[in-house]
Amino acid sequence: MTEWTQWPSWRRLIAIARAPVARSAAATGALAAASLAELVEGLEEYAPEAYPGALRTIAGELLDHCAAVAPLVSLVNTVYLTLDGGPDALAAELRRVERRMASSAGILARVGAPLIEEGGIVLTHGGSGSVQALLVYAAESRRFFVSCVATLPEGEGIELAADLAAAGLAVEVTPDDQVSEILPDIDLVVVGADAIGPRQLMSSAGTADLAAEARPLGVPFYVLASVDKVLPAPLFERAVAAGRVHGRYEATDLKLVTAVVTEQGVLDPREAGGLAEDREVSPALLEAD
Amino acid sequence: MTEWTQWPSWRRLIAIARAPVARSAAATGALAAASLAELVEGLEEYAPEAYPGALRTIAGELLDHCAAVAPLVSLVNTVYLTLDGGPDALAAELRRVERRMASSAGILARVGAPLIEEGGIVLTHGGSGSVQALLVYAAESRRFFVSCVATLPEGEGIELAADLAAAGLAVEVTPDDQVSEILPDIDLVVVGADAIGPRQLMSSAGTADLAAEARPLGVPFYVLASVDKVLPAPLFERAVAAGRVHGRYEATDLKLVTAVVTEQGVLDPREAGGLAEDREVSPALLEAD
Repeated sequence: MTEWTQWPSWRRLIAIARAPVARSAAATGALAAASLAELVEGLEEYAPEAYPGALRTIAGELLDHCAAVAPLVSLVNTVYLTLDGGPDALAAELRRVERRMASSAGILARVGAPLIEEGGIVLTHGGSGSVQALLVYAAESRRFFVSCVATLPEGEGIELAADLAAAGLAVEVTPDDQVSEILPDIDLVVVGADAIGPRQLMSSAGTADLAAEARPLGVPFYVLASVDKVLPAPLFERAVAAGRVHGRYEATDLKLVTAVVTEQGVLDPREAGGLAEDREVSPALLEAD
Repeated sequence: MTEWTQWPSWRRLIAIARAPVARSAAATGALAAASLAELVEGLEEYAPEAYPGALRTIAGELLDHCAAVAPLVSLVNTVYLTLDGGPDALAAELRRVERRMASSAGILARVGAPLIEEGGIVLTHGGSGSVQALLVYAAESRRFFVSCVATLPEGEGIELAADLAAAGLAVEVTPDDQVSEILPDIDLVVVGADAIGPRQLMSSAGTADLAAEARPLGVPFYVLASVDKVLPAPLFERAVAAGRVHGRYEATDLKLVTAVVTEQGVLDPREAGGLAEDREVSPALLEAD
């Protein structure tokens, strides 16, 4: 290894790979994409002999540590698919990915906001950063009430409720064991997805039960997911396996969901699953199994 | 126990007590204050015989689980100090505390924003929700660059950087081992405090080293802290002991700090420590040791 392993871009990527990522996976993906682009540009100028070996090393590092963080997995997939095109093409593609991931929360908020009606009661589970962005954006143009399921043991819903209350929304914490009591009065459930696969979505433990309970009551159940969270079957299955390690995530059948809110619009769950089926996977990622 | 332990307000308080609180302690304090006020109002109407026993029980529960969450400790202290005045006085005081805690992040942002100059480079450590609110507010009126220390192993700084990037700020993740290299170029360090005591502040592990390093370089070091995070000596010491259990927090000498940004203004560290010295403590909280 040469001195490029001391470059800020390399060390930032190692730091991102080593930290657990929770609330802002898409935005963390944008930071990682920017650092990868910087690394590629530096390699092209100062250490061209290290391309593409350095990229393969850091991509492997991200994949080993962050298999459950879908936007980082998508990013690594993009690196492998574009690597042979040379540094210029890869850097340009990484900058496109950076811009797309950085703007996803804002776009999802604008796409999803019309689902929330004046005077409605919205229930959410977990502590999704996308759900937070959506609710804060929607609250600019209408008044509604938000019930955040506490989501113990980590209490992500309490943190989300606190952030929403600080942003001026009318909000309440609902204990996990009290959701069934209030669900008949809820107008809309909205949760974030950590990943979307061909037939399932991955999100905070507890989501599957909630979706199963909302369905017979006729309560619409929406999922927010950036297109960078859509993973083809082998990568989705690896993400769920990695996410289960800490008991954080679980898979929920897409059939239980009313629709998936993406940058491409409010999609029927079959359309969302179809995006995952259509996604190209680099053979390098399949070998890693 | 009667059926009031099944009331939503009670169960919300139990959920808050059982969840770890990180980013939004003051706003979580506001949610807890609202639930306590609701509990008091319910007891007054439906179970007056349970007042003040129920309050002592839930206050003890909050204190046992959340000794490191300063706004919740302040809230419990307020409950004990006001309990004997009767339910009306306590409910009114709790609603005042709720409003104060809910508005603290916005006020701190407005008080602290003038410290950040156009074109400056701001460094932050940890993932404080108050620092996030301050930087987003300041970015409405000027352009500056933010360097977020990754703060491994949890990576709170990576999450903060992602949130700031999603809000449109120019931001970078700085690996923990690279801070010394960039510190001479920094215009201002700003970190959140989890608690302020008479002579020390409590914040993310790593803050003390950073403050000690910034001082000889002449880099101003600011701390954001709502007045509800100011704790008298015995409660501050208990908070630091509880915070050390998970290796999350550490104490830093207030003398290393340039100033403390509070709702009452930008205070000299001795003034901030003086607030902690002046704070009244309920004897009930001292007995609990």
